[in-house]
Amino acid sequence: MDFTRIDAYIDEHFPRHLARVQAFVRQPSISGEGAGMREMAELVAGSIREIGGTAEIVDTPGWPVVYGELDQGAPRTLLLYGMYDVQPVAGEDWLVPPFEARVIPFEDRGECVVGRGVYNTKGPLAGLFSALESVRTVEGRLPVNLKFMIEGEEELGSRNLPGFVARYKDRLRADGTYFGFYAQEKTGKPVLWLGVKGILFFEMVCRGGAWGGPTVRGIHGSLGALIASPVWRMIHAAHTMTAADERITIDGIYDTVIPPSAEDERVLADLARTFDIDMELRENDVLRPKHDATGAALLRHYLFDPILNIDGLVGGHHGAGTKTLLPHEARAKMHVRLVPNMEPDDVRAKILAHLKTIGCADFEVRFEEGYPWAKMSPSAPISQAMIRSLRSFGHEPEVWPNIAGSAPFYLFSRVLSQPFAMGGLGHGGRAHSPNEFATLEGMRLFEKSVVRFVDEFAAIRE
Amino acid sequence: MDFTRIDAYIDEHFPRHLARVQAFVRQPSISGEGAGMREMAELVAGSIREIGGTAEIVDTPGWPVVYGELDQGAPRTLLLYGMYDVQPVAGEDWLVPPFEARVIPFEDRGECVVGRGVYNTKGPLAGLFSALESVRTVEGRLPVNLKFMIEGEEELGSRNLPGFVARYKDRLRADGTYFGFYAQEKTGKPVLWLGVKGILFFEMVCRGGAWGGPTVRGIHGSLGALIASPVWRMIHAAHTMTAADERITIDGIYDTVIPPSAEDERVLADLARTFDIDMELRENDVLRPKHDATGAALLRHYLFDPILNIDGLVGGHHGAGTKTLLPHEARAKMHVRLVPNMEPDDVRAKILAHLKTIGCADFEVRFEEGYPWAKMSPSAPISQAMIRSLRSFGHEPEVWPNIAGSAPFYLFSRVLSQPFAMGGLGHGGRAHSPNEFATLEGMRLFEKSVVRFVDEFAAIRE
Repeated sequence: MDFTRIDAYIDEHFPRHLARVQAFVRQPSISGEGAGMREMAELVAGSIREIGGTAEIVDTPGWPVVYGELDQGAPRTLLLYGMYDVQPVAGEDWLVPPFEARVIPFEDRGECVVGRGVYNTKGPLAGLFSALESVRTVEGRLPVNLKFMIEGEEELGSRNLPGFVARYKDRLRADGTYFGFYAQEKTGKPVLWLGVKGILFFEMVCRGGAWGGPTVRGIHGSLGALIASPVWRMIHAAHTMTAADERITIDGIYDTVIPPSAEDERVLADLARTFDIDMELRENDVLRPKHDATGAALLRHYLFDPILNIDGLVGGHHGAGTKTLLPHEARAKMHVRLVPNMEPDDVRAKILAHLKTIGCADFEVRFEEGYPWAKMSPSAPISQAMIRSLRSFGHEPEVWPNIAGSAPFYLFSRVLSQPFAMGGLGHGGRAHSPNEFATLEGMRLFEKSVVRFVDEFAAIRE
Repeated sequence: MDFTRIDAYIDEHFPRHLARVQAFVRQPSISGEGAGMREMAELVAGSIREIGGTAEIVDTPGWPVVYGELDQGAPRTLLLYGMYDVQPVAGEDWLVPPFEARVIPFEDRGECVVGRGVYNTKGPLAGLFSALESVRTVEGRLPVNLKFMIEGEEELGSRNLPGFVARYKDRLRADGTYFGFYAQEKTGKPVLWLGVKGILFFEMVCRGGAWGGPTVRGIHGSLGALIASPVWRMIHAAHTMTAADERITIDGIYDTVIPPSAEDERVLADLARTFDIDMELRENDVLRPKHDATGAALLRHYLFDPILNIDGLVGGHHGAGTKTLLPHEARAKMHVRLVPNMEPDDVRAKILAHLKTIGCADFEVRFEEGYPWAKMSPSAPISQAMIRSLRSFGHEPEVWPNIAGSAPFYLFSRVLSQPFAMGGLGHGGRAHSPNEFATLEGMRLFEKSVVRFVDEFAAIRE
């Protein structure tokens, strides 16, 4: 491929490529709420068709999956996985409206698009299409065949993706899967993650019932001398689920956890040399980590510890002012991050057994589907293709054994039995937070890095 | 007084008196939020002037107090205490809009006004004015001089009333104080409370800081493996403040609590004969009380136990759907109900000492002013005047040593050193809850019972 000409094409057409990113961000698609989801799926399908592919919007019991194909008669096929949904914005305080995709100078990052989803992951999704379009225009054809699987429920734990993959298993066959996103740090250092943790979401509700407490509505707070409180019961129950250091205290939950492998430990040791924990904390406005550890030991906690996180906790009056109220229910939205070899079904059973043990079998517990962890070896050809494509920009990538976050990549590694890679150049931040952003400069670099990766992937000989 | 003619006047003019109740309810005045507070104070001052009194709206550092006088050249003076503020309605699900004061048949109570504040306590406040107007019209004059002190911060713990009482101490002198409200049960049984618990509100906030945790905004939930959670810390801290049975476990908090007196125990024993705990639970849609006790023992818990209540608890995402979030703060709105001889300052100090002991001295704790308990003897002349006025309607009142709720009556008993009484006929419910209501029939009875009480009070010879 003629990278010089392709890069020049990307630079020349960047205003139009930026507009594609903005169009994606301006179409709200909060999967947890619903508005705009179908319109967003249409936008994605339209983009696949624009670059010459076929696309269909495939219904699931939840939000549809956009499936597409682009046959180039090439020897190798790459499956492009992505997501078109974003996180909620309710209650958040933004510098600019979250769905206007305004270009502003943001903090010390230069010109950025600020908007929900621009980093996670509508910016990279739009960038993929722009990169592919650029190669096709300059080269006439792509060096690989493509398949597309762009889901609308990543932020809900990809609850219907397993069903879709089961139905489309044969059509999804490829030599590898790629999930593109901006993976450069503020310093320019590219980061490569080889795997993901799994996740299991659940909501736990304690409400008044046969045990006591108000059953229908909150009542006058003075009645607390006569009637028990679902909020206190929730606090005492939740307290039994972690220790003061947040280590999970649900019986047996660590039984299936295995320590990092020798290869993991080597990657951890390398990583410890370049990973800047202070920058990570600063980026998140955090003054100290959770553990009294440094270097590889701290990274081991970060990447290999399962956690039980409280995403949200609410009971009673939480508006302005005082209100003497004995609430009738308390709710905790929680999730467990699953590390090797934790399985969602096993963790679910242990949570329920724990609640039974502590006398809280009457709590309503609603689990989302959940999925396990997934990992690639750093020596796998697809990992090496990604490493080479990043190196070609003059940066040595920082290789992580896995990311602390979650994605349903077990569907590739375990269900489809094909290797996967993720990331790319580009820079952004504040995923799941106000003022989510991505830099304009990073958007160009992302497109260029996708072009290099596709070229390296096409060259793999196994 | 000619009760027959006064009662007939009340019945004849009831449509206008009902309209006064509705006008009060239709003027929103949520002290915790602010809108309409001054308009409501004007309405109250206008009502005092309508019945021939003088009124002024006296500014305080918070919402104003409406102070009024009506001199009748009588030997005795009665101070009428009341409140013009109401509880919030945000997030509540009402049958009818909460500020329209619609008259509807409500459950099994017949025709009712349903609206925020109609029971607690705008209905009785409007009824006081209607009763006084009725006596003046029929009799030409009242048998007592009146003073009025109607505050706008009762639902905020009467935080500026002590300051007002200190400033107006001389003008507030009277032979007794009366706080009118609907105190008939569904069965028609009138209930007389001789006292109140005290209260101390506080809000406890745990946010990220030097100890760890995100300090500015919620961050991605996967970071929970590296960064500590203010929500978990709040749960572990709150857990140390009560036992599983909700007994307060803050060191030393029971040190000043004294057991009920011999007179209290006699009243408790009487009360246990008529108090219908099952009805109380049913009214509140509660299936069982907090304590394994019955009769006087259960009442002793209800009326003589201090409690630490959680009015509201919130941290992180509590909207629809899932959101993987590590919140940057958790908030608990709490209050302690104070029984003899707990004092707010002492309790405040013990809460702070407890937080220090458990390593949470960095929590932000914002206390409201708070006030102690207050009680009258059942044999006090003002108590006997109230008992006789209720008996005159053919019901034997059920006498309670105190109510489980709170009001700043220590200002009367301790600061002004004058006796107080509260209650009256009338029926309503759902204070601090959706579908707060009061019966139309009870509104008439309340007015008539106020007339009898004023007559009995005028006749006290001490």
